[in-house]
Amino acid sequence: VKPDLFKYRLGAKPIYQRLRDQIANGDYALGQAIPSSRALARELGVSRTTVTVAYEQLAAEGYVSVRQGSRPVIAVSFADQETRIENPTPPKSWHQNMSRYGRKLADLGDLPQPSPERLLVNFRYGEVDFRNFPAGLWRKAITAAISQRFDVLAYGQPQGSLTLRRALQKYLWRARSINCHIGQIFVVSGSQQGLDILSRILLDPESKFIIENPCYGMARLAFATNGATPIPIEVDEFGMVTSELGDHDARLAYVTPSHQYPLGGVLPVERRLELLEWSTKQDAWIIEDDYDSEFRYDVKPLPPLWAVADNDRVIYVGTVSKTLSPRMRIGYVIVPDTLIRVFEAAKQLADRHSSMLEQDALAELIESGGYERHIRRQRRVNQKRRERLIEAMEAQFGQLVKIEGTQAGLHVVAWFNDLPASSEERLIDRARELGVGIYSVRPLCNPPLSQNGKDRIGLVMGYGSIDEALINKGVRLLKKAYLDTKSAIE
Amino acid sequence: VKPDLFKYRLGAKPIYQRLRDQIANGDYALGQAIPSSRALARELGVSRTTVTVAYEQLAAEGYVSVRQGSRPVIAVSFADQETRIENPTPPKSWHQNMSRYGRKLADLGDLPQPSPERLLVNFRYGEVDFRNFPAGLWRKAITAAISQRFDVLAYGQPQGSLTLRRALQKYLWRARSINCHIGQIFVVSGSQQGLDILSRILLDPESKFIIENPCYGMARLAFATNGATPIPIEVDEFGMVTSELGDHDARLAYVTPSHQYPLGGVLPVERRLELLEWSTKQDAWIIEDDYDSEFRYDVKPLPPLWAVADNDRVIYVGTVSKTLSPRMRIGYVIVPDTLIRVFEAAKQLADRHSSMLEQDALAELIESGGYERHIRRQRRVNQKRRERLIEAMEAQFGQLVKIEGTQAGLHVVAWFNDLPASSEERLIDRARELGVGIYSVRPLCNPPLSQNGKDRIGLVMGYGSIDEALINKGVRLLKKAYLDTKSAIE
Repeated sequence: VKPDLFKYRLGAKPIYQRLRDQIANGDYALGQAIPSSRALARELGVSRTTVTVAYEQLAAEGYVSVRQGSRPVIAVSFADQETRIENPTPPKSWHQNMSRYGRKLADLGDLPQPSPERLLVNFRYGEVDFRNFPAGLWRKAITAAISQRFDVLAYGQPQGSLTLRRALQKYLWRARSINCHIGQIFVVSGSQQGLDILSRILLDPESKFIIENPCYGMARLAFATNGATPIPIEVDEFGMVTSELGDHDARLAYVTPSHQYPLGGVLPVERRLELLEWSTKQDAWIIEDDYDSEFRYDVKPLPPLWAVADNDRVIYVGTVSKTLSPRMRIGYVIVPDTLIRVFEAAKQLADRHSSMLEQDALAELIESGGYERHIRRQRRVNQKRRERLIEAMEAQFGQLVKIEGTQAGLHVVAWFNDLPASSEERLIDRARELGVGIYSVRPLCNPPLSQNGKDRIGLVMGYGSIDEALINKGVRLLKKAYLDTKSAIE
Repeated sequence: VKPDLFKYRLGAKPIYQRLRDQIANGDYALGQAIPSSRALARELGVSRTTVTVAYEQLAAEGYVSVRQGSRPVIAVSFADQETRIENPTPPKSWHQNMSRYGRKLADLGDLPQPSPERLLVNFRYGEVDFRNFPAGLWRKAITAAISQRFDVLAYGQPQGSLTLRRALQKYLWRARSINCHIGQIFVVSGSQQGLDILSRILLDPESKFIIENPCYGMARLAFATNGATPIPIEVDEFGMVTSELGDHDARLAYVTPSHQYPLGGVLPVERRLELLEWSTKQDAWIIEDDYDSEFRYDVKPLPPLWAVADNDRVIYVGTVSKTLSPRMRIGYVIVPDTLIRVFEAAKQLADRHSSMLEQDALAELIESGGYERHIRRQRRVNQKRRERLIEAMEAQFGQLVKIEGTQAGLHVVAWFNDLPASSEERLIDRARELGVGIYSVRPLCNPPLSQNGKDRIGLVMGYGSIDEALINKGVRLLKKAYLDTKSAIE
């Protein structure tokens, strides 16, 4: 097929067609002015006559109205179109032109997406109540950061903003007993990027990795999609059952010792030591995801593995997604000296560095003390939410439900003793009809749990984004969904 | 080795040691107060006595001064330490615990880093003059974006902010004749992330890819570090010599047709058609990096390959690094329908999505018309800089130097006819001594150029960050460096 030279000289027809498509797409609002023919002609490098011909055609078909001396104005209205392509599964032939990684992604099916659904009460984990966001402090910090003056605007360091790393170093020491030098700290675009980079620099397709079961799904995907094989280790109410680590020969273990996700256990000291011992013996890395350790309630904090390990094998991952906002995309990774250079190169090739403005603002927020005051305030707010939730669940369900994982974090797990696992979908659907979002533990289990979850319904109930007053209402509606489900299956 | 249980109860000694290390590191300024013993004890979950013992030891050694009733104050000053570890090359044994990708990164050597060096005139490409940054507009846009109200703060869509993608869709049509639907647009953290994701989803270690020679080094690294093999195609003053594409069987070609980096050619229509024909025949992707197309001067713009291709094989990559700031990390990728789903999954696993605040601010800036007004202003400013540079080079060097790639962008290439390539380092060093930063084409050539650059010195001279008045001075000093080099080698 000989390509058409004509296409390099834009004529009136393609200009007309594209504008028409855009108008039909709802990209312009009714009454909005489009560029003048002179301006568009200049931008496109075509004659003004060419644009005028296109505009006249659009006017003739009623898309725009043209008046002498002013810019044409959109004359029709189209509703916003659905922008997500629902089924763009590539035909098999296209697969040949992707990498194995790409083909794997194509076959993954849909990853969890934020749903735009409006619910009365949504127990989804991972969201933050906007009313708790320190908007005033953040505006002040952003304003300070945006007022910085530079000689030239140049790329920053792959490690991230120096002021933020200095602030984080001190914060992590105060808050988590972590003693590291600044060169070990990397600012990443959310902990997800940290996990993805670690997966790339540590795991080959033929590698194995230890993962908790159930676990944080996006971590499992980050490690497994590169091709590595997961070795799932069962989790009980105290976290990973480390006695099952045995002699498993894996390149790394991904763990959430401060507050197991999703089951909520705080890993006891004995198990921590067993895990560290395993890592020394197997010469394996430990990735410690400390995703919500800022929120702990009745317990004395245990220092993270990073602070007590003496084997240079622990990599620490933290985030501000739970303390500030998941939309901000700021996380941090602390690596042993031996990984600094490789992590730096990987981060630089991945995106050069994370955006600087919000990093500098966060540094300002931490240095001013505002970040830790905000966390202390949030700890109290979330402690109340947690109490409200536990009280309400006990009042409504009593012995029918067992609540676990309550010592820390922003979620608990509720095990329903009295409904068969087979009725789970029905319970979730009924709750949704009543305006309550609930989420099963099951999709996070792979393979299915052998003990705890075997024939029970387990719900991950996040409370970090729910108004205290609504928690009771949500649980009452959940009780109604439970009763409806119960009578439907009997 | 049995790990030490004691380490789980922090004593006074580690607290003392870590504070001492931090003070010695220069993390606290002279006179700065450290946390009160009560506050630190609460944070660390230890008794106040433990912290007091640590503080007394620090005071005894002169690190802090303690006064009854107030917080201890740093009593010594240490200069800022160099934070970058200069030679952390891991010992060979550690390599076993990294992936092949990680080992490759470890062996890469240092990637180009922003140097903190202060120069009188720096012809480094890729930096933007801060005085040209639309600080007022940006502050306004950020303020508007930060004032948005939400129900809950939840993760965004992997594709990026919907308002930004709507704004980009219209902008790209106006500015680049690109007609795409919103689902095809992905906001990425700078074009580097776009290239890295494309490399991961398209290239296997055994794949081959076409790349210009010389080329943009970070693109080559993004593709080659995954293991794929580059097929370099020679570049002349018009861009890639597409007749050399022949029957090369590659998975993709990476090209800069609007303004070849670094040699500056604008790819003529005939070559564009040859490239598209090759891609159809070989069933290969084309990645079109339109990194600085906003800046073109005496030429009519050619529409990008994306706008004219009819083979669904072109992937378009753009950025605001040149128009606004490289520190901002906002780029965009437009993919064919068949790649939407895979790119979306890859972006979600890489970092879920890019930070939302600056995306929303950029949407505001584009929708207000401010972005394009800024670009037009910048085009005039940079056109003057370009004229100043060409005039100065001609005045100082006349026939000794040939300037190429002047039609577009923010850099030109200067070929020195009269100095042997072997004196290049000397010229660069001498210029640096005189306060002028100049940069060779040579590191971007792999293999070394056969025609143009064979025994000539070629400099990539960026002018986007240099004050117009300083350009002349820089070129005069360059002439002095040239004369000094000349007489030194004769």
